[in-house]
Amino acid sequence: VYAVINTKLQKIVTSTWFEKLIVVAILLNAVTLGLETYPKVMTTYGEQLLLADTLFLVFFVSELVLKISVYRRRFFADGWNWFDFSIVTLTLLPALGVPGVGNISAFRALRLLRLLSIVPTFRRVLRGITIALKASFAVMIVLAIILYIFSVSSVKLFRDVSPDYFSDLDAAVFTFFQIMTLDAWSDVVRPIMEVYPLAGLYFIAYIVMTVFILLSIIIGVAANAIEHAQDE
Amino acid sequence: VYAVINTKLQKIVTSTWFEKLIVVAILLNAVTLGLETYPKVMTTYGEQLLLADTLFLVFFVSELVLKISVYRRRFFADGWNWFDFSIVTLTLLPALGVPGVGNISAFRALRLLRLLSIVPTFRRVLRGITIALKASFAVMIVLAIILYIFSVSSVKLFRDVSPDYFSDLDAAVFTFFQIMTLDAWSDVVRPIMEVYPLAGLYFIAYIVMTVFILLSIIIGVAANAIEHAQDE
Amino acid sequence: VYAVINTKLQKIVTSTWFEKLIVVAILLNAVTLGLETYPKVMTTYGEQLLLADTLFLVFFVSELVLKISVYRRRFFADGWNWFDFSIVTLTLLPALGVPGVGNISAFRALRLLRLLSIVPTFRRVLRGITIALKASFAVMIVLAIILYIFSVSSVKLFRDVSPDYFSDLDAAVFTFFQIMTLDAWSDVVRPIMEVYPLAGLYFIAYIVMTVFILLSIIIGVAANAIEHAQDE
Amino acid sequence: VYAVINTKLQKIVTSTWFEKLIVVAILLNAVTLGLETYPKVMTTYGEQLLLADTLFLVFFVSELVLKISVYRRRFFADGWNWFDFSIVTLTLLPALGVPGVGNISAFRALRLLRLLSIVPTFRRVLRGITIALKASFAVMIVLAIILYIFSVSSVKLFRDVSPDYFSDLDAAVFTFFQIMTLDAWSDVVRPIMEVYPLAGLYFIAYIVMTVFILLSIIIGVAANAIEHAQDE
Repeated sequence: VYAVINTKLQKIVTSTWFEKLIVVAILLNAVTLGLETYPKVMTTYGEQLLLADTLFLVFFVSELVLKISVYRRRFFADGWNWFDFSIVTLTLLPALGVPGVGNISAFRALRLLRLLSIVPTFRRVLRGITIALKASFAVMIVLAIILYIFSVSSVKLFRDVSPDYFSDLDAAVFTFFQIMTLDAWSDVVRPIMEVYPLAGLYFIAYIVMTVFILLSIIIGVAANAIEHAQDE
Repeated sequence: VYAVINTKLQKIVTSTWFEKLIVVAILLNAVTLGLETYPKVMTTYGEQLLLADTLFLVFFVSELVLKISVYRRRFFADGWNWFDFSIVTLTLLPALGVPGVGNISAFRALRLLRLLSIVPTFRRVLRGITIALKASFAVMIVLAIILYIFSVSSVKLFRDVSPDYFSDLDAAVFTFFQIMTLDAWSDVVRPIMEVYPLAGLYFIAYIVMTVFILLSIIIGVAANAIEHAQDE
Repeated sequence: VYAVINTKLQKIVTSTWFEKLIVVAILLNAVTLGLETYPKVMTTYGEQLLLADTLFLVFFVSELVLKISVYRRRFFADGWNWFDFSIVTLTLLPALGVPGVGNISAFRALRLLRLLSIVPTFRRVLRGITIALKASFAVMIVLAIILYIFSVSSVKLFRDVSPDYFSDLDAAVFTFFQIMTLDAWSDVVRPIMEVYPLAGLYFIAYIVMTVFILLSIIIGVAANAIEHAQDE
Repeated sequence: VYAVINTKLQKIVTSTWFEKLIVVAILLNAVTLGLETYPKVMTTYGEQLLLADTLFLVFFVSELVLKISVYRRRFFADGWNWFDFSIVTLTLLPALGVPGVGNISAFRALRLLRLLSIVPTFRRVLRGITIALKASFAVMIVLAIILYIFSVSSVKLFRDVSPDYFSDLDAAVFTFFQIMTLDAWSDVVRPIMEVYPLAGLYFIAYIVMTVFILLSIIIGVAANAIEHAQDE
């Protein structure tokens, strides 16, 4: 009897309508989570939305239990299943009353990430991005080292002049990340230059270096992708 | 007799001088629309400009009627004709007195878009961009999902701290689009970090993710284009 | 006798030391022009610097006269010579007392552009950039059309709400150029969204369109360059 | 006896555990340097951290002395060794009490740069970036010339209107670098346009030129990298 049930369950789990059902559930959950952000909607339909959310959670947990009961050990052999499993577990924490995460209903939005792991096209996109990340890993460490060196030395150099941006390592790392994105970097540097006129060179050196390192990331990834495309 | 007229009309419609005439009409219309934006010009030449605009509209409508009467069904077989047809109809709405759009003379500027559909070189450019858009469609959906997840969760996390940027889903989506373009993102994040120091990591994660996704769009499109160029 | 002088002059003009002399003259002129920008330097060495500048002008004019007297008609067959000729003539205007340009000593800095036309490596760089510009010409016209359409319609839509940015066509074109560079675009859009909440979509549409058009410029140029490199 | 010691030392210097020891030492030093930036940590563990730093310095100097005593002349034949040697010497200056650099403990962070020269993967990254820099050297000089011309002429044109940004050559060069990075450039240009409405064209011309030059740097480097990849 057990074997019969198992084959039936397996049919359900591997069927395309089951997959589509999950996608629809995630999309509907996305809508309810979105609606929850409007205060007006919450005052009128708050209870219904929270109920719906609980139902979605029950659905996703059942889905996982079903899949695990069918695939058993093989379930955890697939990286994407781990991805699904972690996300559902993580969004389950507040519902289980784990202390410290009780209020963080923000975690629930993570469930929508499952769209990426269920739709094959998105999986391929994620895989492409992962490959790009791996290919540029060494360059990114170099970038991090440069960022760290500039951050450490800038705390000692500019803490007194610009305490908002360079009070300690945390603040300095954030500031140098901001400068790397070229966002409002002149607002950071101009006040310092009024005290140390040569500080401009220090920051320009940083910008030129990081831009070139970022450039070499882009080009490395691009060269890889083009080679790949030509092999196929 | 009817057939004779039709062949004559067809000759006109397919002639290069007729196409050039339309281009000139659109360019002149562009000039009058531009002049209408200067208050000083409007006080002196307002009536003439509006008259000219009406004449241009009459001209474009006649052109469409002419083309439809010549090509008939085949007219709507060409996507570019649909493009022309929709634009002229849309800019006709205010003139026809359709309620609700009466004041939106801004629609008229859309007519200039017809330049892109009439000049073959521009058609090719548009086609290139469309291909690029299609090729990167899946990646753009992934980007939208990431944007949505961050928006939903940020409303719950930062609404109280930063109500201007994260009051509801609309505001949060706009804010995360802004952060994705790296415009003034530190102005959004720094005040939040004063309350939640770790929020910086949340936003840096978002920036790194979106930058990498955007990068993979660029590279995907580039690899496609280069392959294409090599096939030819 | 005349022929003898001419061959002698020709030897001078085509010699490498003559070319180097011109490069050195331009570089020295760059230094004096730079020094002229410091008020302190001008109060002490103002006269000497202006004298030096006059001497450099005399030198460049003589050089041109020499070259023209040697090459005659052939001189104007080379585009780079036209480049040199125009620049020297342009910077000569204030010295000649042409009315209206008398004060614009800023023109003199244009002389430094001659470095680009004299050093062969820089000529090659300029040629590469010119090729890139030509290849992307059609796409840039498309970009200009989009910019124009948005500018014209935004004046009508947002003039009352945001008169600083959209008072007339000039202001709107500048504003949309600024938005295209993604500089402080949220500062332009947020105040408008307080009146028209949907205006955000209008500007996001503009940004997405221009970013994709710019992307297709980059990729078009890149594909061209790579093809070129492979042909060689 | 001396030869025996030398071969033993050579074994140590070329062993992988010795290399790993240095990497660990640099990483630990990175941690202590980072901790030194937190005022709270310094008040409690200040002495220990400074002691640790001195020990690291002693370690790095001994390492260099050891390597030089083993390799002798060959030591300076390798560019990376020069890199290490300069960095350690530079960070030694304050410890040696060289006047004028006594306070600049910021130099010590430079030691972390040695990570890049010791780990082979990072060396390869640096070499790649160096190649990219060399390939784009000529274009960067062109960029510098354009920057210089605009800076010199803008001082004369806009000094009176906008003294904060264009007081002298230094200020103008910094401002034009800022504009090149597209950071807050409209904040620089809009006030000037209120006096000279046409100044907008001047700055737009600068932005378009520099963007195209930067684009040609990127594409040149990319074309090089792809060619390279195909040769292998």
